[in-house]
Order: sequence, then C-alpha cells, then structure tokens
Amino acid sequence: MSDSLVVGLDVGGTSTRAAVFALTGERLGTGRAGGGNPTSHGAERAADELRSALRAALATVDPARVRAGTIGLAGAGRLLADPAGRAAFDTAWHDVGLRCPYQVYGDALVAYASGTAAPDGTVLIAGTGAIAAQVCGLDLGRTADGHGWLLGDTGSGFWLGREAVRRTLTELDLGRQVGTLATRVLTELLGSPDVADRPRQTAEAVVQTVTRRAPIELAGLAPLVVTAAREGEPTAVALITEAARELTASTARIRPPDATDPIVLGGGLLTGDTPLASAVRAELAVHWPGAPLHTAGDGAAAGAWLAARTLSELTDPVLLHRLLTAPAAG
Amino acid sequence: MSDSLVVGLDVGGTSTRAAVFALTGERLGTGRAGGGNPTSHGAERAADELRSALRAALATVDPARVRAGTIGLAGAGRLLADPAGRAAFDTAWHDVGLRCPYQVYGDALVAYASGTAAPDGTVLIAGTGAIAAQVCGLDLGRTADGHGWLLGDTGSGFWLGREAVRRTLTELDLGRQVGTLATRVLTELLGSPDVADRPRQTAEAVVQTVTRRAPIELAGLAPLVVTAAREGEPTAVALITEAARELTASTARIRPPDATDPIVLGGGLLTGDTPLASAVRAELAVHWPGAPLHTAGDGAAAGAWLAARTLSELTDPVLLHRLLTAPAAG
Repeated sequence: MSDSLVVGLDVGGTSTRAAVFALTGERLGTGRAGGGNPTSHGAERAADELRSALRAALATVDPARVRAGTIGLAGAGRLLADPAGRAAFDTAWHDVGLRCPYQVYGDALVAYASGTAAPDGTVLIAGTGAIAAQVCGLDLGRTADGHGWLLGDTGSGFWLGREAVRRTLTELDLGRQVGTLATRVLTELLGSPDVADRPRQTAEAVVQTVTRRAPIELAGLAPLVVTAAREGEPTAVALITEAARELTASTARIRPPDATDPIVLGGGLLTGDTPLASAVRAELAVHWPGAPLHTAGDGAAAGAWLAARTLSELTDPVLLHRLLTAPAAG
Repeated sequence: MSDSLVVGLDVGGTSTRAAVFALTGERLGTGRAGGGNPTSHGAERAADELRSALRAALATVDPARVRAGTIGLAGAGRLLADPAGRAAFDTAWHDVGLRCPYQVYGDALVAYASGTAAPDGTVLIAGTGAIAAQVCGLDLGRTADGHGWLLGDTGSGFWLGREAVRRTLTELDLGRQVGTLATRVLTELLGSPDVADRPRQTAEAVVQTVTRRAPIELAGLAPLVVTAAREGEPTAVALITEAARELTASTARIRPPDATDPIVLGGGLLTGDTPLASAVRAELAVHWPGAPLHTAGDGAAAGAWLAARTLSELTDPVLLHRLLTAPAAG
C-alpha cells in the first residue's frame, strides 16, 4: 500500500470538519472549526475556519504526503463561480502546507457518498431545508426542491415548524380548546398556552411574534412536532405523515419508478432515529421496494474517500469506503 | 325627512374614498385621495389623505349638517389602540369642519355592510390577503385566516402567485417541457420562457429573482393565474379550484353549517367577474344552499350607511341601504 494520504473537508453553516486518512483506512487526524459556509459567512471568514480545521487535522502528519483532497459545502457552485472566494480557499489550502489539488463538491453529493460507495443512486436530505438529488457516476444529476423556505423545502424542518403554527392558528380560529401540539407551540411562542376566552387575540399575538423574527426561525419549532409525534399526538403524527409523503414526492420527481440503486437519507431530520426518518423509510420502501436505504454519515470521511478515488494507487474503493464510514472510524 | 347628512370614509392601502349622503339616499359629495392606511403609511400621512378626501366630499355642503360618520380601515383595532394615530385622525376630522363623532370599523365589516343590510351574516374577502368573518348585529364576530402571507392568507392573491411559482419549479424539477402557466410565470419573472436544456439553472434563477423581492410581490402573479384559468389552462384551473376550496374551508371554520343568512364576497379576486369568484360561489352554494350571496360594493357608501344607522331619525335603514348601494349611486 502506498504512503499517500487524503484529506476531506465538510464545511457546514455551524461547523467545519476536516479528516486525514491513509489509503489503508486509518484515520490520522481530525480537525474542527466554526461555521465556514462562504455564502453565509463570507469567503475570508470561511477560509479562516477552513485553515484552522485543516491545521488541527494535519497536526501529526507531513502535509506533503497528502495527495488529494475535497471540500464539500452547500452552494459549491457559487464558490466556484466566485474568483475571490476560490482564491481565499486556495490560499488557506496552501497556508497549511498542502500541495495537492482539491475538488469542491456540493453538500448533497458528500451526504450521498457518506452513505454508500455505489456510483449511482439518490440522496434525500431534510434538515432546515429539503432537497432530493440523483447521483450518476458520483456526479450530481437532477435535483428536486431545495428551493428555499418561501417557495419550497416541503417536508423540511422549516415546513414542519410553519405547519405546526398554521394548525395552531386554525384551531384558534375554530374557537375550541386547542390540542397538545398547539398548546406547546403557544407556550414556545408566547411563553404561555393560556388562551381561554381570547382565541382571536392569541392568534394575532402568534402572527405578530412569528413575523417579528426571521421566517427561517420557524424551523426551531420542528423539534416540538417530532417530540409530539413520538407521543402519538394526532396533529403532529399527521404532519409527520404529510412531510414523509412530500419528501417522497420530491424524490419521485427525479428517481425512476423502477430504480433499485441505493437511497441515502441525510439531514438532521432523517439521520437520527426520528418519527420522520421512520415514516420516510416506510414510504420509500413502498415506492422503491428492494432499494437499499442508507443513512448519511461522516461528511469529512466521505470527502476523503471522494479524494482517494482520484488516486490511481487506490485498488479497492468499496473496501476503503467501508473502512472510512465504519462507526469506529467516525 | 331630516336635514341631517352622514359621511363615510373607506381607507385603503392604495386609495382613500369619502362620500357624503343625505338620509334620503342622495349623494351630495365624493372625495378621493391616496393610500391612507395608518399601518402601512404612518398615522400622519394617513390623516393627510383623510383630510383631502373629506375636503373634496364636503366641498358643496355645510359640514355642520353632518351628524354621523364612520371610518373603515384595515387594522382598525391597531388605530384605536394607538393614541397618536387616533389623535391624528381626530385632528383631520375637525380640520375639515366636522363636529359630529365618528366610529372606526374594520374593513371586513365595511365590506360586509356594502353588500347587505342584514345585521347577521358572513363576509369572505380574497384580495392580496384572505379572511372570513362572522357578523352579528353588524359587529365583527369570529374570524378565520387573515393571518398574513407567511402563516396564512390561503386562497388569496399572494397564495395564487406563490403556488404558480411552486408549480413552475416542480415542472422544472421534472425536467420536462413546462406548461402554459409556467411559461408565462418564467416570462414574467425572467423576461424569457427559454429554459430548453437548463431547467435546473432556470429554477435557481426563479428562486433568486423571487427572493430578491419582498415576498408579498408574489401576489402580482395572481392575474397570470386568473387569465390562464379563463383560457382553461389545466394548472391554473387546478389552482383556482384549490383556492376556492381553501376559502370555503376558512368560511366553514366560522359559519355554522346550517346558516341561511347572507354571505358577502369582497376583495379584488371575488368582486370582479373572475374564475375564482365563480368557483367560490359554486362551492359556497354547495355548503350553504339557500344562503343569499352578495358582492361587496362601495365601501364609502357602506360607511355612510353604518353612520346613518346611529341616527334616531333614520326610519328605514334597509331602504336607505338599497339607495346607497344601488349601482347608479356608486
């Protein structure tokens, strides 16, 4: 086996993670820094986080041994189209002593590669937003949704939070006693579920509270829906069922009905043991019986694996994938 | 018949209209000024528009003869709760020589009163936003929706515009030739319907164009849906059908299933001869067979009528309503 190393970077909105591996699958270093998404944080600050995650990961190895690297981030296309952003990333890369080239991939492809080594398949992500994408030869193909909270992200955390508030307002309009989920939404938003004789004023207070904040903060209510659904609360269960159907419908827009290649589930709402993850798995199994369902794992390891695949000395990429994404390696 | 006059003011976001009537139903003056909604324009500017509409309406009569007046506006509750706004309106009222008191009503009640003299009934409004409200003894009762574009206004102009864009994005995700409504949406938003081989880039351009603007501007696409539905375009027809169902569902939240009192349709999408107005009328007739369906008319005349009702010398309010809301009087 060669002496070559590979590095993977997973750049997210809240953290940047780097990992260095030998082609044997041995993890030689790990680094973590703050949110580095150039779209939300600016390219210079993103490059700073990149640098610090890379420095930590490379602390005990000679950077000259690294032969390939990848950077995975949301909005990869925008970075590649922006010369200043690209230059800031180049500088960070070289500052830490790396001399090999690197590839930039979108977060959807990295999520896919973190769940399977199969070159063709589908990835479905539901976190704050939601997107489904086809993968062909480990390249991103057609996508469905991912259109943002105003026009899309159906079935996402934002969507669950907004629908929970909408159902609450409907119950207040009806002037009846509100249900358990609505009571929790009112407690979260207004500090008290006390609506007794004033449902109309309560509805107005809810609208004012939500519209004073950034719309995306509605995603913060998604955990209330998940928790209530676990307890069997009917409105929450109905919302989870609808979200699972919508996410499956998005998937069906891009995935052929007779496809049997793998589906990888990514994003905070689908990687954990949540009621939405279970409902989505059940829906997908009905639509695509026999298709393997995988869960997205370590994005930095997946990035390192994508980098290793470009090296001619890598003889068994499937074996390496198994080593890199094994729980013990994460 | 007495010598008394009444004045009505209809304060909207784009225009302020005033009308002065004798209790015989004779219209003695009309005034019009710019948008005067204190919520969107500030109380001082709203009061200026009020003043100028009133001055024009009172040009040929002695203001001292006016014995009662009403001001109808959206967010009436907020004005009443704001001492500075109330003071600005008081000053405008007195500046034009009016000495009588005035009442402030919400636009939903004024819309209702512009369609019928019946004290009890329901009003359903769909313009940029959407709301349904019960009216009991010419007082506003329970309401449904009216929760604004982020959380509600289902079936409104905003909703139609947003759904048209959502359907367009779905067709682009499918990677097929887009339909007629989608083509018009793309032409309106991007200046060209040319998507040929680049549906994903076109979808991204649509999202970017819409999110650069204020969300409420999506209501500006509603006329595309209305026009396409008139021509029988399937997506537009489906959206109109869904909007009519949603507006009827909002109405059903507040109106008893066995009610036979009148329903008044208001707002730009329901007062004109639009496919949505026809679809809503058909839905309402199924849910509440036998209930009279009226269309909202002149809000300033309705305000004057509401004012006249407070005068003891008015002997036949139903007759006066007929005179004030007759097409010739408008």
